[in-house]
Amino acid sequence: MVENLDYIDLKYRPSKNDVIVEFFIEPNKITLEKACQHVAAESSIGTWTTISTMTPEIARKLKPHVFSINKNSGEVKIAYPQDLFEQGNMSNIFSSIGGNIFGMSSVNNIRLQDMQLTKKLIKSFQGPRFGVNGVRKITRIKKRPLVGTIVKPKVGLSPEQHAKVAYAAWMGGCDVVKDDENLASMTFNKFEDRIRTTLDLRDKAEKETGEKKIYMPNISAETATMVKRAEFVKAYGGEYIMVDILTVGWSALQSIRDMEHEMVIHAHRAGHAAFTRNPKHGISMLTIAKAARLCGVDQLHIGAIVGKMEGSAEEVVSMGEEIEQQLVHPKKSAHMLEQEWYNVKPVLAVCSGGLHPGRVDKLMKYMGNNIVIQMGGGIHGHPDGTVAGAAAARQSVEAIMKRKSLRDYAKTHIELYKALAKWGN
Amino acid sequence: MVENLDYIDLKYRPSKNDVIVEFFIEPNKITLEKACQHVAAESSIGTWTTISTMTPEIARKLKPHVFSINKNSGEVKIAYPQDLFEQGNMSNIFSSIGGNIFGMSSVNNIRLQDMQLTKKLIKSFQGPRFGVNGVRKITRIKKRPLVGTIVKPKVGLSPEQHAKVAYAAWMGGCDVVKDDENLASMTFNKFEDRIRTTLDLRDKAEKETGEKKIYMPNISAETATMVKRAEFVKAYGGEYIMVDILTVGWSALQSIRDMEHEMVIHAHRAGHAAFTRNPKHGISMLTIAKAARLCGVDQLHIGAIVGKMEGSAEEVVSMGEEIEQQLVHPKKSAHMLEQEWYNVKPVLAVCSGGLHPGRVDKLMKYMGNNIVIQMGGGIHGHPDGTVAGAAAARQSVEAIMKRKSLRDYAKTHIELYKALAKWGN
Repeated sequence: MVENLDYIDLKYRPSKNDVIVEFFIEPNKITLEKACQHVAAESSIGTWTTISTMTPEIARKLKPHVFSINKNSGEVKIAYPQDLFEQGNMSNIFSSIGGNIFGMSSVNNIRLQDMQLTKKLIKSFQGPRFGVNGVRKITRIKKRPLVGTIVKPKVGLSPEQHAKVAYAAWMGGCDVVKDDENLASMTFNKFEDRIRTTLDLRDKAEKETGEKKIYMPNISAETATMVKRAEFVKAYGGEYIMVDILTVGWSALQSIRDMEHEMVIHAHRAGHAAFTRNPKHGISMLTIAKAARLCGVDQLHIGAIVGKMEGSAEEVVSMGEEIEQQLVHPKKSAHMLEQEWYNVKPVLAVCSGGLHPGRVDKLMKYMGNNIVIQMGGGIHGHPDGTVAGAAAARQSVEAIMKRKSLRDYAKTHIELYKALAKWGN
Repeated sequence: MVENLDYIDLKYRPSKNDVIVEFFIEPNKITLEKACQHVAAESSIGTWTTISTMTPEIARKLKPHVFSINKNSGEVKIAYPQDLFEQGNMSNIFSSIGGNIFGMSSVNNIRLQDMQLTKKLIKSFQGPRFGVNGVRKITRIKKRPLVGTIVKPKVGLSPEQHAKVAYAAWMGGCDVVKDDENLASMTFNKFEDRIRTTLDLRDKAEKETGEKKIYMPNISAETATMVKRAEFVKAYGGEYIMVDILTVGWSALQSIRDMEHEMVIHAHRAGHAAFTRNPKHGISMLTIAKAARLCGVDQLHIGAIVGKMEGSAEEVVSMGEEIEQQLVHPKKSAHMLEQEWYNVKPVLAVCSGGLHPGRVDKLMKYMGNNIVIQMGGGIHGHPDGTVAGAAAARQSVEAIMKRKSLRDYAKTHIELYKALAKWGN
């Protein structure tokens, strides 16, 4: 029997074959060191008692090393041999380093802050098929942010009404229009009917505006149903699908990316804040964003900074860097580890949630041009309706691209003027 | 434009077509009533501002009603028309009532405590194929709890070593043996090799003991890979598969239940405590357990009460009732709503996490006989090894079934005696 495996080795220097994980750990009635031992054991090869089936050989090959412990902040870093994880299996990564540890009674709080993956693991996932450049090619928008909306009300419109709202948004100036996350195939709005009516009006809007227009229908459902829905969209001339990645889950997301049909995946993240919001417990949204990039989403909601949802500027900006860069530098204050992304394409960041034209200047100052700016209420709530709302949204982006202030630009753009009058700037 | 939809109606009496959801809500700098309005809107048909596309017709048909607000406790009940949800689509239910609301800046904390589903929605899901009776038929165990173990160490054994540990556990007295949640298809232990070696030794153990023995291999991975792995297990004579339901996600779980192969689904819940643990925020494990029963797991981990994981006795006992009864009575202290389960089969509760033979008496007092008692370290950590550990575990269950105390029974059962000597009682 191998007695009392010691996982702590502050002199250990991680190798290129180690996955490095940063945790915040708040122990429960034991020392932080003791809690680190429990966490390292439970997330790898150990359990709560010495066992007869452990061998020195296994310990030597697969034991993780706790190599950094900050007693003041509770920040802990653990290096896991990459062979502890199955390649290309996201469920397995979370079951290991983001699984049982959250329920251990030896910790009061524990948070998975970031994971630095090895080259072998990074390359074992598919990553985005299109990414930022692919999306810009399809939409023919070279530099500016994409302007998008969500059909509102979230749920309740018939397929015809839905298509009309989308059409109005495209005609006003939106590039992309998406379903809301709780709109699936409803009794009053069947998925297939919605696709037909909405893509028909997309074709019309493209003809009338001369611009490329995108519809992002929510296919979230049981896996095979999702694939069928994606095929239906493809057959009807759509290029995009939207997936609510956390409520469908990692395995289904990987299956959607595995489909032979070449479709752009727009990722919504409903439910993330159930476990990302508490700064002391759960999983950081940064970790979720990395996992989403690995699994291969092309666009990902990361927050709006200036909208209706929580999420600090630093958090959202860091996430934007993580999903769009090839070599991410470590940032201590954001609990962000270094990460080389090798040949994994960058993901286009989507900013959404309580945005309106009057907030676009601040948003773009934080996030730059490589984003989708989505407004739901901020477009359909315009005093003159959806067309005017979409025009105001597009004008707000134009203003910033022309380095003009929103207020100045509003002087000659009535839709933007009315939006600022309703919601401020 | 429909101005300021009012979602609060304390006189409203929910109909049989309403889904009732209990939330805990802690508002952020606004009144609880105002926060309720935001939550009801965001989880159904509304958004943060008045919009031009809302109609009185949609509001009349689909508006949810906040019909109960407890200002002291923050307990809120909302009735949602069932047409807000797609039938048989678990992702859609969570995207609606367990989605964006967690990230709203108008609440500090919000927790989804329970959901009472309608007959139509309940019947739209498949539920367990086998359930408690099906498992008892397969295992030929009529009354007592099933005794199980997890192969330990969690990860690191070769397929041959793995099979030998499983064999030892079966020979000692275990009925079921499962993979640990972080064991997938590893470089040193390929899934297919493990299935072959372990099911071969299962056949041997069955012949030698005359008892039915079960192996529950972890198939958690991308959906199509999971289906292939399940088929492999089936082809090799296995009846069970294990799925880590939260890290694979709801859509893949539904797909696995949809498979034509008739296999018992053992559900692990790694990662749940990232969002179930904080009593003020996230989603209750009770809600997750209901969703798992609907999706059709046959066995579900719900906690051990007396083990290494957090989870109060009341919470675990209530969950046991929820997954095993056909008509669940409301229990205010456990935030449990009434629920009729119609023809959905009951799920066998699995108690696991830091258990050893000395804790079996207390556990069975709480949970009764309709459970799987799983011990990992509590079996392989036995001073005389796995066979003796499994024998001790089985003896502890025998003792309680014979209404004897563990200490008394240990006087004539050396394996149990040594287990109690190591871990206490």
